[in-house]
Amino acid sequence: MVMGQTGFSNIVDIEKRFKIHQKIVSSPKVQAYMAPGVSNEKKREDEQSSRENSIHLCNPHLEKMKEDILYHFALGTGTHDFPALFGDVKFVCVGGSPSRMKAFIAYIAEELGLGSSGGDYPNICAGTDRYAMYKVGPVLSVSHGMGIPSISIMLHELIKLLYHAKCSNITIIRIGTSGGIGLEPGSVVITRQSVDATFKPQFEQVVLGKTIIRSTNLDEELAKELLQCSKEINQFNTVIGNTMCTLDFYEGQGRLDGAICLYNEEEKLQYLKEAYDSGVRNIEMESSVFAAMCNLSGVRAAVVCVTLLNRLEGDQISSSHDILVEYQQRPQKLVGYFIKKSLGKV
Amino acid sequence: MVMGQTGFSNIVDIEKRFKIHQKIVSSPKVQAYMAPGVSNEKKREDEQSSRENSIHLCNPHLEKMKEDILYHFALGTGTHDFPALFGDVKFVCVGGSPSRMKAFIAYIAEELGLGSSGGDYPNICAGTDRYAMYKVGPVLSVSHGMGIPSISIMLHELIKLLYHAKCSNITIIRIGTSGGIGLEPGSVVITRQSVDATFKPQFEQVVLGKTIIRSTNLDEELAKELLQCSKEINQFNTVIGNTMCTLDFYEGQGRLDGAICLYNEEEKLQYLKEAYDSGVRNIEMESSVFAAMCNLSGVRAAVVCVTLLNRLEGDQISSSHDILVEYQQRPQKLVGYFIKKSLGKV
Repeated sequence: MVMGQTGFSNIVDIEKRFKIHQKIVSSPKVQAYMAPGVSNEKKREDEQSSRENSIHLCNPHLEKMKEDILYHFALGTGTHDFPALFGDVKFVCVGGSPSRMKAFIAYIAEELGLGSSGGDYPNICAGTDRYAMYKVGPVLSVSHGMGIPSISIMLHELIKLLYHAKCSNITIIRIGTSGGIGLEPGSVVITRQSVDATFKPQFEQVVLGKTIIRSTNLDEELAKELLQCSKEINQFNTVIGNTMCTLDFYEGQGRLDGAICLYNEEEKLQYLKEAYDSGVRNIEMESSVFAAMCNLSGVRAAVVCVTLLNRLEGDQISSSHDILVEYQQRPQKLVGYFIKKSLGKV
Repeated sequence: MVMGQTGFSNIVDIEKRFKIHQKIVSSPKVQAYMAPGVSNEKKREDEQSSRENSIHLCNPHLEKMKEDILYHFALGTGTHDFPALFGDVKFVCVGGSPSRMKAFIAYIAEELGLGSSGGDYPNICAGTDRYAMYKVGPVLSVSHGMGIPSISIMLHELIKLLYHAKCSNITIIRIGTSGGIGLEPGSVVITRQSVDATFKPQFEQVVLGKTIIRSTNLDEELAKELLQCSKEINQFNTVIGNTMCTLDFYEGQGRLDGAICLYNEEEKLQYLKEAYDSGVRNIEMESSVFAAMCNLSGVRAAVVCVTLLNRLEGDQISSSHDILVEYQQRPQKLVGYFIKKSLGKV
């Protein structure tokens, strides 16, 4: 649920003011946004309409704009034909590193039998170096950099892109790297819930200086489908677990090897064990705002991250380059198989 | 000053526990960290020692490590000779975009008469696509991506790099882009204080699930020197003002053009006018943690950002490519002139 903390009294008020109640409630993901006590009467209607599930833009101002410049993509509705360029997109895969997202598009093209003759895929966002974007058939692959603010900018512009392109029935999956807790390195974690540094499934969004709390639930069915895919390919350990999303890689994740560290190893391990006991199996830096924004936009979403190390045993990522490269391919393999299966190509 | 909020009782306790009090207090920037009531008795000693001001690592654990892998730079003390590679660095310039930081190193090389014959500068972090790093003479140029978490990872590894390289008397300057408030687009803002979304000069760092507040003061003398440089080159409007640092580009900065917007134009303008009245002249997404970490590490630091638009007049960055490119060169020109002047080459 979405709750106002200090400024906006609650989501129902906000929805009434901006007449977005209908938009949000007509989403199949309505459970996540309802204030406590709001009934489920729309649920059946939602299920019926979910076959053609379009993007829900929670912004009444956009309709008034003649042109929309997606500055960090170097794309705009005045200069690019979004429906022609992106209208057939059904799967969006996002990840931190631009080169990994380029490798993913080449991999999925090969898997889907859509490989280009030259084997090269142009960067759709070539006009900027903020993000990289590649497309093959119904699959879009986009980099998002590191951390909540970086992925948040990308998601605002991606969601608008999909809306302007009139896309429907979109699945967005983040494929990334993470630190594991209590798992063998190389294990893949499919996120049940993204939790904050106090293990709560929520994301704090600051709006005009005030803090609003948003839900970070992810699509349960999608997580189960992905786990089933992992069983079918049977190549690496995969679990469903909670993912802790932090604002910092060093102090925020209890590392002892940053430039600043004002706690000792015992306190670090106690914190990581508390995280484990609360259901956390990995730590990364983007999943909370990813879940919150996909929730609000009515998009089915999942987070699939490989663990590069077991944080109960250390802080430094010291595996060899080759091993790390192989680990990083695991979420790509899993999601690649899922897309093939969804398209009836398995 | 640094204050404990919910977890660590106060900075003096932390310093005592980890014996880092001396390190912090021996910095010339001590005023910024002192808990209220701590006397200035060390000040004179600091002034005397400031001629050879080395990096203060606020982490007692690092001394015990045999090797330090700076994962996001793809550099390590076991594989790279840091004193040989970086020991002569005196100026570090950081900015979001890798291509802009590459352009900066070419520009400063030319200005300092250190241009390479081919005019190309290798990326020192070529083993990763997380950050890009270039060096010419005493100047290091590093990209940091977008947002607090992204620059925070880079700064942890940069501060350790400078420490391992035994660098001294370092000046770090962030050269970036921003949204202006009440300024003609293209104006350059030198940051007096970095403030949060409620206009307070502080940065909230989450450590093991608990929030610690850190000071975001910047070096006053350095800001004045930079303003004087701008007067001498006399090419564009430059002011000293407060910079608001947000976790988000759209809702966090009161934009009406994101995928999610639950407020109206009047509320947006009221918020931006309050920011202006409190002394804020521009908004960006990295300065608070930059100031906080440079403070704690005893490094003289400044933030110099050009404003791409006046947020009181709109949200979209719609100036032509050529105009934006020229705007983005202004912080480079100003900081380039400052470095030349500091080296006695003006």
